[in-house]
Amino acid sequence: MSKTNGEKRIRVALLGCGVVGSAVARMLIESADDLRSRIGAPVELVGIAVRRLAKDRTDLPVPADLFTTDAAELVTRADIVVEVIGGIEPARSLLLSAMKHGASVVTANKALLAEDGPTLYAAADAAGVDLYFEAAVAGAIPILRPMRESLAGDDVRKVLGIVNGTTNFVLDKMDTTGAGFEETVAQAQALGYAEADPTADVEGFDAAAKAALLASLAFHTRVTGADVFREGISDVTAADIAAAKAMDCVVKLLAICERTTGADGIEGVSVRVHPAMIPRTHPLASVRDAYNAVFVEARAAGQLMFYGRGAGGDPTASAVLGDLVAIARHQVAGGRGPGESAYADLPILDVGQSLTRYHLSLDVEDRPGVLAQVAQAFADTDVSIETVRQHIRTNAGTGAKRANLVIVTHTATEAALAATVDALSETDCVAEVVSVMRVEGA
Amino acid sequence: MSKTNGEKRIRVALLGCGVVGSAVARMLIESADDLRSRIGAPVELVGIAVRRLAKDRTDLPVPADLFTTDAAELVTRADIVVEVIGGIEPARSLLLSAMKHGASVVTANKALLAEDGPTLYAAADAAGVDLYFEAAVAGAIPILRPMRESLAGDDVRKVLGIVNGTTNFVLDKMDTTGAGFEETVAQAQALGYAEADPTADVEGFDAAAKAALLASLAFHTRVTGADVFREGISDVTAADIAAAKAMDCVVKLLAICERTTGADGIEGVSVRVHPAMIPRTHPLASVRDAYNAVFVEARAAGQLMFYGRGAGGDPTASAVLGDLVAIARHQVAGGRGPGESAYADLPILDVGQSLTRYHLSLDVEDRPGVLAQVAQAFADTDVSIETVRQHIRTNAGTGAKRANLVIVTHTATEAALAATVDALSETDCVAEVVSVMRVEGA
Repeated sequence: MSKTNGEKRIRVALLGCGVVGSAVARMLIESADDLRSRIGAPVELVGIAVRRLAKDRTDLPVPADLFTTDAAELVTRADIVVEVIGGIEPARSLLLSAMKHGASVVTANKALLAEDGPTLYAAADAAGVDLYFEAAVAGAIPILRPMRESLAGDDVRKVLGIVNGTTNFVLDKMDTTGAGFEETVAQAQALGYAEADPTADVEGFDAAAKAALLASLAFHTRVTGADVFREGISDVTAADIAAAKAMDCVVKLLAICERTTGADGIEGVSVRVHPAMIPRTHPLASVRDAYNAVFVEARAAGQLMFYGRGAGGDPTASAVLGDLVAIARHQVAGGRGPGESAYADLPILDVGQSLTRYHLSLDVEDRPGVLAQVAQAFADTDVSIETVRQHIRTNAGTGAKRANLVIVTHTATEAALAATVDALSETDCVAEVVSVMRVEGA
Repeated sequence: MSKTNGEKRIRVALLGCGVVGSAVARMLIESADDLRSRIGAPVELVGIAVRRLAKDRTDLPVPADLFTTDAAELVTRADIVVEVIGGIEPARSLLLSAMKHGASVVTANKALLAEDGPTLYAAADAAGVDLYFEAAVAGAIPILRPMRESLAGDDVRKVLGIVNGTTNFVLDKMDTTGAGFEETVAQAQALGYAEADPTADVEGFDAAAKAALLASLAFHTRVTGADVFREGISDVTAADIAAAKAMDCVVKLLAICERTTGADGIEGVSVRVHPAMIPRTHPLASVRDAYNAVFVEARAAGQLMFYGRGAGGDPTASAVLGDLVAIARHQVAGGRGPGESAYADLPILDVGQSLTRYHLSLDVEDRPGVLAQVAQAFADTDVSIETVRQHIRTNAGTGAKRANLVIVTHTATEAALAATVDALSETDCVAEVVSVMRVEGA
């Protein structure tokens, strides 16, 4: 904090001026009076690091001389550095330098935190500064602060999150229109809900990074993106969506963080991202379009849900500004926000150990004894069947009959289910295992 | 904070040992190891103030000698005082004394905060201690911390809350069973969802206190329970619920806090509690049973919703423990939580100025020209009609025909609507204004 004419002011440096950065800059300027009242000192935007100075930014209410391409220099003259450039480098080096120079940090960088969070926490501790990152998960939705603070006296057992707006938009549209994956992604791209290269979203990389952050906070255990089992939505077909509908379910890409006891009796943490069917009566089922929501089960609090916009300039900027006010209050009145809490150090369970229910669709021959053979394959691999439905189909050309079996299992481990699928593939009467999908939220 | 053998410990005094107090005591004991790790120092329960020592509490894992009837003495030897006795006195005097003696305070006492919050804040400031009260609104749902901290850089425009579980249970049951109010309250009492004297809940006093707290935080303005317009649910009939159903709406008791410009052009705060119809597609409509939810609209964040259990021992204790950990961390590492923020000091708008849509049901004569007369009464009082539906009913005995008009208005002030209702009562062809209900959440 610097003083001018005896008045303390909080110097803020902004790294990045894209959609989020612009919104942050605008709010800092336009809400300056409110921020001063809420913090107890004025906030001054001292610089915005950008890649190219040439770009026209005259729509922003920011003096042109605040823009700089020298981010490394900028971070040395701020009390709070806001990083919204994303990616691992140069973001990491800039934040480490900022903290070394005494600045606290607000970042929306889920990838960096999921890859190397402990390094950032350690740097914050060494410098005695704050590290806040509410905007890194679920945009405007206050979820990390509730997890770090509101639930700090409780035991979180499970987190189920819809934390990627692009995939939720795609799955929701597939549900309402009946269209296929490729077609719907193209529509999402045309509407600006999906990137030209949608891999990070549709293959679940973005959600996996967020799952790692949620699990780390929920279970007081270090979880990195690499610890997260990940399966995207590119294999979800219109038939899967229709099958879910028939079960009165919807398909969502879920980030699932669970404190559980594996098949070998060891308590640990299971973190996974994959599409799953959830009942339409589940609170997450009604999360439409590009909205996000995080469902939390804690021992004492019971079931909680947090819902809102997961992306976009203004919503993300709201989360950034909330963190900025918290840090600024510390700089005015003393104190620090919570640091890393990884004391529980629970083992990360292999996905093979995680327990879920499964929905399987099988094409089988239509003759007596088939159901018995199929049921035997489940029994041999220790997976218990909850329901079976059989549909008979006649091939219009050949007149041959085929049966479709839809089976929902009781809870089973991923490993057992994989063995079931292998056993089914080797069962004569099974022509094809058409689809396998997990069922959550029962 | 006291030290024993060189180790700091946080001394916690608990005032009250009812449903919530017992849950707090149990969690403090059973989660002691986790709390120590999360705080950085052990927490020690040094006493529990109760009204009668004679009561059997052997089910609690608490040494018998911790119970005391001398609350006044207990608060002088604690670092954190947790108050869950409720009511104005002796709670207020005990908390003021606790703070004077240097203790920080966690309270779930919405009535006291809504009546005399500024006195408590001032005492906390004078003593340099913390005042936290997450459990006072919506039980386990983290809503006050998000409001005080996560949204501290944003502008909250509107809060719509279902913050009373008893009334939500009653209205939800009326919706699903079609039963009347009295009958459903009796059922709620039998199930333990309503008190023997349900006045505080069904007449909206409890919700009004919570609305005052939410509005104070949302708008940085002092709002007391007395500032809140309040109308309970005891006049809601099975016919009202059926009328809502016909509109694809549900009836909820809403706490509504709004930053708005009154009819006279002055910007202010409108805070009210009343039953209202909301569309079944609104996120709040699916809040069933005794659950609570708070819907927030902020300028940058957009629409947010927070959902969970609003009452009960364990959920409320979860919120209390979260506050306790936050305070304890301050006592270990320095710093203080946010104090009162009332700088905006907006005027409280009279309910007459608040803008809502209305649903009216009128019994009218069945003859030509009636609709024109009714429409004129609306026009004369400057209330614009959005939709009209007419049903003709024949009296089985007399054969006389009567018409029922269901009218939904565009947005109008309470004052204008009251004038409309007066005008309708004086209109010859209107036999009865059967019901008037506000419509929210459009």
